[in-house]
Amino acid sequence: MGPHPAVAAIRLAVRRVLHDILNDHQPTDPTATPARGSHARPPAPLVLVACSGGADSMALASALAFEAPRLGLRAGGVTVDHGLQPGSDLRADEVVLRLRELGLDPVEATAVTVGREGGPEAAARDARYAALDAAAERHGAAAVLLGHTRDDQAETVLLGLARGSGIRSLSGMAEISGTGGRYRRPFLQVDRQTARKACMVQSLPVWDDPHNADPAYTRSRLRHEGLPALEKALGKGVVEALARTAQLSRDDADALDAWAGQAETAVRDAAGLLECAKLYALPPAVRRRILRRAAIEAGAPAGSLFARHIEEVDRLITGWRGQGVINLPGKVVAQRQGGRLVIRQG
Amino acid sequence: MGPHPAVAAIRLAVRRVLHDILNDHQPTDPTATPARGSHARPPAPLVLVACSGGADSMALASALAFEAPRLGLRAGGVTVDHGLQPGSDLRADEVVLRLRELGLDPVEATAVTVGREGGPEAAARDARYAALDAAAERHGAAAVLLGHTRDDQAETVLLGLARGSGIRSLSGMAEISGTGGRYRRPFLQVDRQTARKACMVQSLPVWDDPHNADPAYTRSRLRHEGLPALEKALGKGVVEALARTAQLSRDDADALDAWAGQAETAVRDAAGLLECAKLYALPPAVRRRILRRAAIEAGAPAGSLFARHIEEVDRLITGWRGQGVINLPGKVVAQRQGGRLVIRQG
Repeated sequence: MGPHPAVAAIRLAVRRVLHDILNDHQPTDPTATPARGSHARPPAPLVLVACSGGADSMALASALAFEAPRLGLRAGGVTVDHGLQPGSDLRADEVVLRLRELGLDPVEATAVTVGREGGPEAAARDARYAALDAAAERHGAAAVLLGHTRDDQAETVLLGLARGSGIRSLSGMAEISGTGGRYRRPFLQVDRQTARKACMVQSLPVWDDPHNADPAYTRSRLRHEGLPALEKALGKGVVEALARTAQLSRDDADALDAWAGQAETAVRDAAGLLECAKLYALPPAVRRRILRRAAIEAGAPAGSLFARHIEEVDRLITGWRGQGVINLPGKVVAQRQGGRLVIRQG
Repeated sequence: MGPHPAVAAIRLAVRRVLHDILNDHQPTDPTATPARGSHARPPAPLVLVACSGGADSMALASALAFEAPRLGLRAGGVTVDHGLQPGSDLRADEVVLRLRELGLDPVEATAVTVGREGGPEAAARDARYAALDAAAERHGAAAVLLGHTRDDQAETVLLGLARGSGIRSLSGMAEISGTGGRYRRPFLQVDRQTARKACMVQSLPVWDDPHNADPAYTRSRLRHEGLPALEKALGKGVVEALARTAQLSRDDADALDAWAGQAETAVRDAAGLLECAKLYALPPAVRRRILRRAAIEAGAPAGSLFARHIEEVDRLITGWRGQGVINLPGKVVAQRQGGRLVIRQG
């Protein structure tokens, strides 16, 4: 008898990603072969799992522990102690123990100090990824697996939707991200229920992060109230539809960014200035991307640059009636001068 | 003292659209001038409002009645009797009366028979637009104004999101649509609350369509449960963010469709067949649009062609391992033959 369907599903998802990691780490560089006369082979690539002790990442750890040795990979784990609740260090120690019990090695807990920048969720995330980056470097890991599920992806799409800043913010989390594609998310097509079930049938104890149910957190409100209400109104397929929207939006945003990148050189004059007539001839979606890139290049912080800013700059092209200088975030100004669009630090 | 801000807002929205309609109807054709010797001028262009008697379209009718004469336009109205409730004919007669009181002329009620195709909402919509098209033709109207508000737009985006079929379905309703751009939606940036307020302060009686509160209708569930829950989780800006997403998605989808249209000719060989190697070199977003167009051209009904169908065809290009024929809706088949992709009715 094979494993429970939930366990089979999480293992398959992890196996696929491990295959990709192996393909990316074929030793093709002849200088990487061991010294002459030595028969020592380089150590097998190491894959780490980032584990909070919650059901999603415990399921991920269990699947990694099962699959990695079968593919000649080493499997380790990291848990980040955010220090946000009393006793979080004990919790981290317990997660380390659980990961060791699964057979992972190396395993470590790493403590971080969460700042305040960008709100509690963003600050915790920044601290967490910095710690995971450091752990990956320290252990020379080929990849770090993250336990984000299809449900997390759906929530991320809705959070992006609430920003109203276009399809890039609808594209959710990538399957591969980070420096050199370090982070991998094998569970983006796996739902939370499957991960929970896999833990249950494997008798893995899991920890429910109280933050996940804390209505002070936007994501938690979305998870416990927003998404269920949407499902009630629109039907059970909403989570899947949101996850699919993420993938389609990502591909579309990538293609349009590539187009804007190519078009940008064509709309600049010999002095490198943007020519209004050539910008005018482009589709609005491409033109606005070029304007956004130019504003960021001139020093406008990407996070403070909203659609309405770009629309105002765009009207210098499409609705020219002698407007004055337009002020953008980061003390950047945009103005039209003699058929050219000048965007620079003011 | 000027009008109430809500009344000023709805009038401004309508004035802008009427200006556009006037610009589109400048008599530039010299053959359109009246016969020699005659001083009769052609009648002023007629703009109709589609009015259910609800707050949104009553507000729209009142603004049209106010603005049209000031711009030398004639203003009329149509109300559609869907025949879905007993006494709906009396209701329609009452709306006709209200529209006449506003000074609109011509005004008419038109009865339709709602079929069943595509569900109750789609069937009612199809019948309504057919009746509005007929009324526009009958009266030689230059345009028909529709009272969809920013809230309706937000709901439409969420309905599209639930389909999970990409950014075209996120692009909501267009400001201009229909044959020759007949339909105009002046209120897409106006919220429902403003329309209601404008009716109140103008003492316009409005009718609440019981369907709008009927939980049997997806849109009604979304309006009364889904969107409020999302707003509670994500904040009050959700409706605006969704409406902005619609506009950005529409522009993006238009640009990508244009790209796919251009690229399509470049990836066909002398015999008109799609070359797999050239398709492979395109960004996924562009390639999948070409595949979708080819499937529809071969006879697959657009409404039954889902993202998963296109993905499967795409794997003939990106994941070729000798797959057999792929069946698509409308008895269309796709297969790879000698480096060419053949999509045709099977």
